[in-house]
Amino acid sequence: MPTPSTPLGEFDLIGKYFTRPVQRVALGVGDDCALLQPAPGMQLAVSSDMLVEGRHFLSTVAPERLGHKALAVNLSDLAACGARPLAFTLALSMPRVDERFLEGFSRGLFALAEAHGCELAGGDTTQGPLNICITVFGEVPPGQALLRSGARAGDDVYVSGTVGDARLALEAFRGTVALAGDHFEQARVAMEQPQPRVALGLALRGIASSAIDVSDGLLGDLRHILQRSNVGATLEVDRLPRTAVLAAQPLALQRECTLAGGDDYELVFTAAPAQAEAVQAAARQAATPVTRIGRIEAGSVLVLVDAQGQTVADHFGSFDHFKS
Amino acid sequence: MPTPSTPLGEFDLIGKYFTRPVQRVALGVGDDCALLQPAPGMQLAVSSDMLVEGRHFLSTVAPERLGHKALAVNLSDLAACGARPLAFTLALSMPRVDERFLEGFSRGLFALAEAHGCELAGGDTTQGPLNICITVFGEVPPGQALLRSGARAGDDVYVSGTVGDARLALEAFRGTVALAGDHFEQARVAMEQPQPRVALGLALRGIASSAIDVSDGLLGDLRHILQRSNVGATLEVDRLPRTAVLAAQPLALQRECTLAGGDDYELVFTAAPAQAEAVQAAARQAATPVTRIGRIEAGSVLVLVDAQGQTVADHFGSFDHFKS
Repeated sequence: MPTPSTPLGEFDLIGKYFTRPVQRVALGVGDDCALLQPAPGMQLAVSSDMLVEGRHFLSTVAPERLGHKALAVNLSDLAACGARPLAFTLALSMPRVDERFLEGFSRGLFALAEAHGCELAGGDTTQGPLNICITVFGEVPPGQALLRSGARAGDDVYVSGTVGDARLALEAFRGTVALAGDHFEQARVAMEQPQPRVALGLALRGIASSAIDVSDGLLGDLRHILQRSNVGATLEVDRLPRTAVLAAQPLALQRECTLAGGDDYELVFTAAPAQAEAVQAAARQAATPVTRIGRIEAGSVLVLVDAQGQTVADHFGSFDHFKS
Repeated sequence: MPTPSTPLGEFDLIGKYFTRPVQRVALGVGDDCALLQPAPGMQLAVSSDMLVEGRHFLSTVAPERLGHKALAVNLSDLAACGARPLAFTLALSMPRVDERFLEGFSRGLFALAEAHGCELAGGDTTQGPLNICITVFGEVPPGQALLRSGARAGDDVYVSGTVGDARLALEAFRGTVALAGDHFEQARVAMEQPQPRVALGLALRGIASSAIDVSDGLLGDLRHILQRSNVGATLEVDRLPRTAVLAAQPLALQRECTLAGGDDYELVFTAAPAQAEAVQAAARQAATPVTRIGRIEAGSVLVLVDAQGQTVADHFGSFDHFKS
């Protein structure tokens, strides 16, 4: 066994930090493959997200929050499909074995995993620049997954929770915004510990006509729905829900953060007007506020309007990992 | 649309290089999740491997071979479980959009994927140090997966193909060995384009008592079987199959490469002596030679013996990504 002064080897660190008793997974960490037994007739929803330092998190993030976030962004994809989390694999590249990092990272990771009944089924560890790749598995009855392609003209557009705080925190880290200590901490938690809207996604099955999670910015992600559904939309930009912390900032910054901020991990979704009551009931059931922010239109144009109904110029980009 | 002088954005490059028509996957690249419909009653075998430059491949590798290898090492894990490949996700971090790289990488990737009927279901691309993480999905009837834990005292130990050429090539790249041009190329292909033994893994269902693929070195990987199965083994080191290229090297180097080389992606497996004929029939069916290299023993010791039955000192390490 390694002594405290001996760095852990690959198999030691998997055993110490990333092995938990198997529950619903038929075979977990430690063989060539994990074995999952999908429930009869269910479809398996699969998503994979890779997190890179400086792109998806800052070097200042606490390891526990990073462990949380790495899984949260993946669970958010399941939420956007209305899938129930089952299991995940973790591939982790690190410059060196840092037990303080591993202890915090695994604690944050497993806390969120256990809150969602999502088991670590297997993975890989290697030496290299810090990189975290999680692939998550969920289940959904055939035909019930929420897709990007189902929006229809006349549908209402909704968003869950609030948007923009993660970007506000990033601007504070960049030094372009000054925030008081408690305001900074609130925004920072939004950036570093997003809460995936799994319960809302499940509650919206059969109610929402389309859905996506906001990772690259609300406008850009809404555009994915519009493109896939061959529709346009009118978005009421002043209705976008925001925290009091963000609402205290200049209007131009509020708009930048809410419309193009990214890293929100809220759900943007559409539903027919006849489903308005059902949407609110789903929101209550999931204990997640939702706000109507616009309407799907025929055509392919996305129009932004303010509270007075005036058109707002759309100069907002979407986050692109190779253009930002 | 981007002009040739404009670097592709994230979504453009996914569309151009990583989107193929959906076949057996219910929903593929381009939504929050991919949707898989497992065949009724089948278990899903899942494995994830992350490849980092300098650890798993050299910067000199041709992109096409790298695309092949990134999927091959994952298919090798399915092979070791006796699972039939279904689909995979790809997460790719790259310093910049290099279309020459992407064209070759995706060509090598899809050539191997199509050869095994394994579909790209989804994934992620981002900017960062070059890192390739593939998660692969296969199916296997419940109870038929080949595990590491099934070896029993008296079983024969086998290995497929030949071992050691990948390590020989690495030593040539390192300058510790000089190889003639055609010898170098043969060893280099073994290192850069390993052929996953999927057909053999499938043919060994119900015949092999345990299996693992050789990624970290034959001795180290065999030890995983011994530990999981609570057994020992006698390994006849001079019986390890090797190419003529490797057999032309000094004996000490041959032993180092065959026993502890790694990156072979052959299968090491065990089977009861009564299955000896069935093993050879499976090998013929899979058009993959297999060689008996030892025997499982009671206890927990791994003994190496030479052709004269003399004990060979075991000073061979296993590859550990944090200790090498």
